[in-house]
Amino acid sequence: MNQIKIVALVAFILTAPTFASNSLIPVSKETKEMAVSLRDKAIKDDSAYEILKSLTTEVGARHPGTPGEKAGIEWGINKLKALGFDKVYTEDVKMNGWVRGIETAEVLIPSYQKLTITALGRSKSTPEGGLEAQIVHFESYADLEKAADGSLKGKIAFISNRMERFKNGAGYGRANIARSKGHELAAKKGAEALLIRSIGTDDHRNPHTGATNVAMGYTMVPAVALSNPDADQLVRLIGYGHSPKIRLNIQTKDLGAIVTKNVIGEMTGRELPNEVVVIGGHLDSWDLGTGAVDDGAGVAIAMATATLIKNNTEMRPRRTIRVILWGAEELGLIGARAYAKAREADGTIANHVIGSESDFGAGPVYGLQSSDNISENAMHVVDTMAGLMGELGVTRRSGNTSGGPDMMPLAALGVPALNLMQDGTDYFDLHHTPDDTFDKVNPEHMRQNVAAWTVFAFIAAEWPGSFK
Amino acid sequence: MNQIKIVALVAFILTAPTFASNSLIPVSKETKEMAVSLRDKAIKDDSAYEILKSLTTEVGARHPGTPGEKAGIEWGINKLKALGFDKVYTEDVKMNGWVRGIETAEVLIPSYQKLTITALGRSKSTPEGGLEAQIVHFESYADLEKAADGSLKGKIAFISNRMERFKNGAGYGRANIARSKGHELAAKKGAEALLIRSIGTDDHRNPHTGATNVAMGYTMVPAVALSNPDADQLVRLIGYGHSPKIRLNIQTKDLGAIVTKNVIGEMTGRELPNEVVVIGGHLDSWDLGTGAVDDGAGVAIAMATATLIKNNTEMRPRRTIRVILWGAEELGLIGARAYAKAREADGTIANHVIGSESDFGAGPVYGLQSSDNISENAMHVVDTMAGLMGELGVTRRSGNTSGGPDMMPLAALGVPALNLMQDGTDYFDLHHTPDDTFDKVNPEHMRQNVAAWTVFAFIAAEWPGSFK
Ligand SMILES: [Zn+2]
Ligand SMILES: [Zn+2]
Ligand SMILES: [Zn+2]
Ligand SMILES: [Zn+2]
Repeated sequence: MNQIKIVALVAFILTAPTFASNSLIPVSKETKEMAVSLRDKAIKDDSAYEILKSLTTEVGARHPGTPGEKAGIEWGINKLKALGFDKVYTEDVKMNGWVRGIETAEVLIPSYQKLTITALGRSKSTPEGGLEAQIVHFESYADLEKAADGSLKGKIAFISNRMERFKNGAGYGRANIARSKGHELAAKKGAEALLIRSIGTDDHRNPHTGATNVAMGYTMVPAVALSNPDADQLVRLIGYGHSPKIRLNIQTKDLGAIVTKNVIGEMTGRELPNEVVVIGGHLDSWDLGTGAVDDGAGVAIAMATATLIKNNTEMRPRRTIRVILWGAEELGLIGARAYAKAREADGTIANHVIGSESDFGAGPVYGLQSSDNISENAMHVVDTMAGLMGELGVTRRSGNTSGGPDMMPLAALGVPALNLMQDGTDYFDLHHTPDDTFDKVNPEHMRQNVAAWTVFAFIAAEWPGSFK
Repeated sequence: MNQIKIVALVAFILTAPTFASNSLIPVSKETKEMAVSLRDKAIKDDSAYEILKSLTTEVGARHPGTPGEKAGIEWGINKLKALGFDKVYTEDVKMNGWVRGIETAEVLIPSYQKLTITALGRSKSTPEGGLEAQIVHFESYADLEKAADGSLKGKIAFISNRMERFKNGAGYGRANIARSKGHELAAKKGAEALLIRSIGTDDHRNPHTGATNVAMGYTMVPAVALSNPDADQLVRLIGYGHSPKIRLNIQTKDLGAIVTKNVIGEMTGRELPNEVVVIGGHLDSWDLGTGAVDDGAGVAIAMATATLIKNNTEMRPRRTIRVILWGAEELGLIGARAYAKAREADGTIANHVIGSESDFGAGPVYGLQSSDNISENAMHVVDTMAGLMGELGVTRRSGNTSGGPDMMPLAALGVPALNLMQDGTDYFDLHHTPDDTFDKVNPEHMRQNVAAWTVFAFIAAEWPGSFK
């Protein structure tokens, strides 16, 4: 039993005179009442919406290695301080930067038509001035797999798979292999470049970018997403019997070694300051939009949640609430991996009582899911949280969770996690596109999110037991 | 009484043995039955949708002076011939061409942010490499009017007026003065350029282009539309107390004298071939999208309507149905003005019995409006048409009409007109944007349109009386 656990036990004995049997530590009446009171304040509070408005308007896009990212980090530090966090600090994260430059495409045959495209993350450049080639159409990644190796010499591989719309975003993973691994497969088949229908559910001429499975350097061939209407246009052209020839010009740049930051703000626990409840969102965004639903919303929800708890309680909750504005999530959870590694190194992983990230847009929370490593004796706390979120339309859900993308490295080290499941029906209309802007966010949904997060964060920080 | 009227009278006497009193010429039972039969065939017929698919896919954008326009004219001629029109021909129209080149804009202060913009029609270029200037915000054209002349030296005038959404598009005219005349007013106030919120109702990062009131040459200062989210972003930045400075680079080109064409297909009337019922849409489009709702839909509806009548009647209707695919509508009804002038010159204006253009998107028809120059004795025919369209959800509407933009020059010369009013609730989400593409069109609505147009065109061509 380490120091922290002893302190926790002492604190617990002092404050919780009666136990349930089997070591179940109840959520006290006072804690529940306070959670309800905080929830009911949050549902009338536009702080998260205002924080998001400031971030997306005054900073804009926050892609690693750009001035926007630097401005975002400055903004994060200043905003956390202005909101009255007890401790505000950053941790440097080394990474490899990549930025897009020129990106144009046109159909040359059968008729001249401009295409709306964008390079996928870490796409290689085409030769200067672009390349011209016929496209060869595959309806899915699996269909491209069936082509003979080397058979696409001098051609562009075009995968047209359509992402399906689901509330929980289930269509994303299924379609996304074309984006993440298509470039390798296209190279294997001998193609000059990879062209995919955007991994997204909208019908606007705004392509969806996103990461490929390349950690540094470049994809194996230039890897490009068409807007969905443009992809459908090519499919129709082929349906008429044409063999479209296109010109593709992609110029991108590997920035080499750069430094990004995790920006961290803490509300220090009154009794167990070393035990932390981790909440947050990622501060970086893709470069095309202003990162409103991905993930300015998560950043704003987490900041507003901690602030609302601080401003409406006489003393700090028992444990520390650590708000982490994760860096460089979009290029592969880079800030989150670095954070987990650093906590392994400094021996504080075990201090992470529980955590969650908000990174699925700005839709309302409808479900509460818990990770499998939460002990049976603590499940009643999660059930209580869900119960107190019930008025917000939240129900308890089954299934395991890592607690969001940036929680994955921590979850892999055994940190318990919750998932405040958001309605993502429209999320992939905007995700990674120029259209991810503040005007798309519903203030009522932001309030509902903070209300749910407040119940979670307050109870997790105040309940004296262990989730493990 | 001219030759044509005598022929008409003889024809009429031969075919319509009984008259209503007061010279009312009834719509015969056979004509009504045939109109119903055609309507009921049209509602199950996807010809218009297929025609539109071919035009927008195989040709794409059709902006005057571009290869796309040439391809569109070729397509029109070939398609009319393939559909079996009795006569297919073109008429040359002289005009001045204008095309866009580079168009980029960025916020420089308070933070670097890319803006989504497009040049308005006939916009002047900025100096090469662009200009940098602070923006000065006006909520409306009227507000900019109040600024002192010469007071905006070194600044960019920014008008942020929001177009309102209405079924009949009533918000367009009100907002549009900023687009059409803003450049003159900005120049008068001394500004370097004009920046407007797009004249459109969507919230996507696709700006709306459109004509300015410049017939040749250039606007007085560079005239540019921001996408609506970008305009709102600037308004928010200003709301925070910032004075945004932007860089604007617009390079456009006056093509000088070019030739466009009206493409015309006729179904020759069996008895009164010189009397024509004019239907159509405009074949040109803006360059950003593929001109699906503006106005490929109108082109397809008109072509399908005449074809459906031809294919489902034993003999041609009494009068000629002339389908006109108007040229260069977007740059100021240029094809339509030339056509009207040529008909004045060749003395055949009086042969135009009645006309209408479909140019308000691909939404369903909900109303039938008539021009005030239709005689009292012919109003019952319009009422009958509306009655036969009733099952399609169409009702008779009051108000005067020119019968659509390209009918205006003819209407000004006294040609009777109808307006098949379309539901334009969503039209200005797409109008003049990159998003005006085939995927936005509902095939059911296309069928409904052709059904309504068939009732109109068939009865207008078959009923032996005069609308004047
Ligand atoms: Zn994200
Ligand atoms: Zn993302
Ligand atoms: Zn039009
Ligand atoms: Zn138009």
